[in-house]
Formats: sequence, structure tokens, C-alpha cells
Amino acid sequence: MDDKPLPTPEEDAQLAHVIGHRLQKQVMVCTAKSCTANGSEAVLEAFKQQLVDRHLLYNKHDREAPIQCITCGSVGFCAIGPAVLVYPDGVWYAHVHPEDVPEIIEEHLVKGKPVERLVRKRM
Amino acid sequence: MDDKPLPTPEEDAQLAHVIGHRLQKQVMVCTAKSCTANGSEAVLEAFKQQLVDRHLLYNKHDREAPIQCITCGSVGFCAIGPAVLVYPDGVWYAHVHPEDVPEIIEEHLVKGKPVERLVRKRM
Repeated sequence: MDDKPLPTPEEDAQLAHVIGHRLQKQVMVCTAKSCTANGSEAVLEAFKQQLVDRHLLYNKHDREAPIQCITCGSVGFCAIGPAVLVYPDGVWYAHVHPEDVPEIIEEHLVKGKPVERLVRKRM
Repeated sequence: MDDKPLPTPEEDAQLAHVIGHRLQKQVMVCTAKSCTANGSEAVLEAFKQQLVDRHLLYNKHDREAPIQCITCGSVGFCAIGPAVLVYPDGVWYAHVHPEDVPEIIEEHLVKGKPVERLVRKRM
């Protein structure tokens, strides 16, 4: 165990803006092998670009925006990808292609209603 | 838009066992640049190995186990990593090192009580 004491939550909040930010949703796009082979990189780019265009993407350039978009490893949807997860909702999407991204952004991320035809698991 | 109709949820469940599995928790270890530089790969390996040892790691070798452990991209904890997220709880840990892993497994993942000294965000 490291003998150095941990920084306090207050100290850490100075170093990690996201701690104090009211992040509303986290979108995770699987970029493991199978999803990548099925085009998940284009899905990731579609989410990022369209969220930026709508001033919804939280990143270092926009620290007021409500949605974070990151990659994740395999969730077991290898045969039905690309997989996209949305938290804290716990909605797991399968078969997501770039043409589905505007609908997921508008209906789910903005209006709060998951796109049921693509939902394959909830947790 | 692809003209091929989507597989049904029932068809997909035949191809993705996790759909029908009662997954209880998902542990995500950040393996983006800063967390990796701070040793997150060792944290990931510690989780995986110890969860396997306790028959808790859900993967193709153990489809009854309750916990999935995957990687994720940067969540904004670059300066306070390694970052570990636990869903559906929405608990974000910072400063996680391999020596913290047994406590997180036992106290949080098994007993349901987050290790507060390392929690830096909830969502």
C-alpha cells in the first residue's frame, strides 16, 4: 500500500472537473474486435460529431455539456454488434450503425425515451 | 439504412448469452493513456484474476458468474487515476491500485457497500 495519503475529494475535484459536473449520460461504444469489425469506430465518430454539433458532448472544449461519449471493451454482444451502452440508464443497444445515431441522440439522450427496436438488455 | 430486417430480441438472445444472464455488476477499468501510465493494466488484471479465483467473473468460461469486468476509455479522471467505474451502481473510483482490488471486490461487489475512501463521483 502506498504510504502517501490519498488526496481529499475536494483536492481531486480541482484536478478532475467531471467530479463537480452534472453529467447526465454516459454513452459507451464498444470498440473491441468484433464490434470494430462491424463498424463501431464509425458509430463512435457519428456520436461524437453529432453531439459536438448539438453542443451536447462533454469534453475539455465544452465543460457545460451533459453527455460523455467513450469507448468500452467487449460486453458479450460480439455476434450482434456494434454494441452501445447508455448509463446511468443501463440500456444496452445492439446492431447500432451510424444511421441509427441521430435517433438515439434525439429520442433517448435528449428526450429520455430509449430506441426500443435496438435495445437488447437492461441492467 | 440497411434493408435487412433486424434480428428479433429472441434471435439475438441465442447469439449473445449475456442478454439472458442475470449480470449483477459491470466493473470498468479505464485503460486510456493517463490511467495506463498510472498502472491501470495491473488493476484490470488484478480484478480479472481475483474475480476468476472467486468464481465471480462472467466470461465464456463461466456463464453463471455475476460480474463482468471490461476496459473503458477516459472518463476525465486522467489526473487522479487509475479510474474504475462500477455499474449499475454508478460509482466512480479514483486512485485505484492493485492493493485496493480485494477490498473493492469483497466490500462493494460482494457485500454491496462501496469503498468510500476511493469514491470520487456518483451518477
